[in-house]
Amino acid sequence: MKLVLVRHGESIWNRDNLFTGWTDVGLSDIGKKEAIEVGKMLKIKSYDFDICYTSYLKRAIQTLNYILYEMDREWLPVVKTWKLNERHYGALQGLNKSEVAKKFGLEQVMLWRRSYAIKPPALNEDDARNPILQDMYREEDKNELPLTECLADTFDRVIPYYNSEIIPKIMDGKRVLIVSHGNSLRALMKYIENISDTDIIDVNVPTGIPLIYEFDSNLKIIGKEILHRNVEPSFP
Amino acid sequence: MKLVLVRHGESIWNRDNLFTGWTDVGLSDIGKKEAIEVGKMLKIKSYDFDICYTSYLKRAIQTLNYILYEMDREWLPVVKTWKLNERHYGALQGLNKSEVAKKFGLEQVMLWRRSYAIKPPALNEDDARNPILQDMYREEDKNELPLTECLADTFDRVIPYYNSEIIPKIMDGKRVLIVSHGNSLRALMKYIENISDTDIIDVNVPTGIPLIYEFDSNLKIIGKEILHRNVEPSFP
Repeated sequence: MKLVLVRHGESIWNRDNLFTGWTDVGLSDIGKKEAIEVGKMLKIKSYDFDICYTSYLKRAIQTLNYILYEMDREWLPVVKTWKLNERHYGALQGLNKSEVAKKFGLEQVMLWRRSYAIKPPALNEDDARNPILQDMYREEDKNELPLTECLADTFDRVIPYYNSEIIPKIMDGKRVLIVSHGNSLRALMKYIENISDTDIIDVNVPTGIPLIYEFDSNLKIIGKEILHRNVEPSFP
Repeated sequence: MKLVLVRHGESIWNRDNLFTGWTDVGLSDIGKKEAIEVGKMLKIKSYDFDICYTSYLKRAIQTLNYILYEMDREWLPVVKTWKLNERHYGALQGLNKSEVAKKFGLEQVMLWRRSYAIKPPALNEDDARNPILQDMYREEDKNELPLTECLADTFDRVIPYYNSEIIPKIMDGKRVLIVSHGNSLRALMKYIENISDTDIIDVNVPTGIPLIYEFDSNLKIIGKEILHRNVEPSFP
């Protein structure tokens, strides 16, 4: 039983070095090429899937669309859920990472970015970016929607979803693809690999590189593979 | 309560005047522009949806993707089902419509294309295009998959799906978008508007023009609107 995790391709805010979080920005041109290459890679290596999961955010959805296009698998079922959204970056969203580092110090920024339990400053409730005020979350339980998150908070929404919705599919023999975000994937990796709160600090997930876990029938990991880009680039 | 139906944009086989049916061909450049314009139109006219349905065929899925992109609604749930596939065109698939007309006569071709109950010649069971042999239908009940269909056959798979899956959503207040195909939409229109077997012959569905039904709480039609392209084209 295999599970394939893919972080979305570079977004325009990754490119511009801005804190993104739940801001719904699209892929950069490089990000589109990364997504296409992931699809080509998975196809060449004969990967196939039965069901795909992604977040509500377009950089993940578009990455998945490109992958399925390249794999000639656009007909596969796709489940979108905010539970797989990126970590909410609170009031840091939209700010330049270097400028924030100048203002608050690199140490503070690294704590916000990499530590497990330190939350960035929260959005104000009347901020237009409050998820409660956005169309995208109109069907969701308003009490669950955050104004900021530390990685532990992200873990606490990703993992229950993974256990209740995705694990049963894997146990049922379904081949699952998850296209998601840096921190929602770090939460998943922490859980799957049982990484400590300290060690997760040093785990980073590059964009557009598939990470493949292989499980035995008790969901014990028996393999972990990172697919590197050894496919001839097809783009100019 | 409103229901919006959209036929996919022009496919490369529409463009080349070939019988398509279940052949999984992509959109032509014109078809992409049509899909984008539908999205812009629906957005400008303040349409919104809660759930979207489409077929397994990429010309419909890609049309829906373009529409949702333009509407900034890529996060909406999308249900894909072969029950909304185009009519299966049997052994005519891949043949040029004019050449078939020369060989069999225009009258015969019009019977195949427009009549309610006359099936085109079936695919052979060992034809690689038999849906049973294709990845796309591997999860489906093999006894239900056709080798050819008349419009009555298409009706007999579209309408039970519509009644069991889509009508309950509409009754529940959900705003539904269906992006599908010429003949699956003719089947839906026949059912919704109670069009006779004879009159359905003259009903054609243009690509990329949204058709909107408005229902009262008993699902009686109280309005029908066709959205024409009065949006300034945004493409070169």
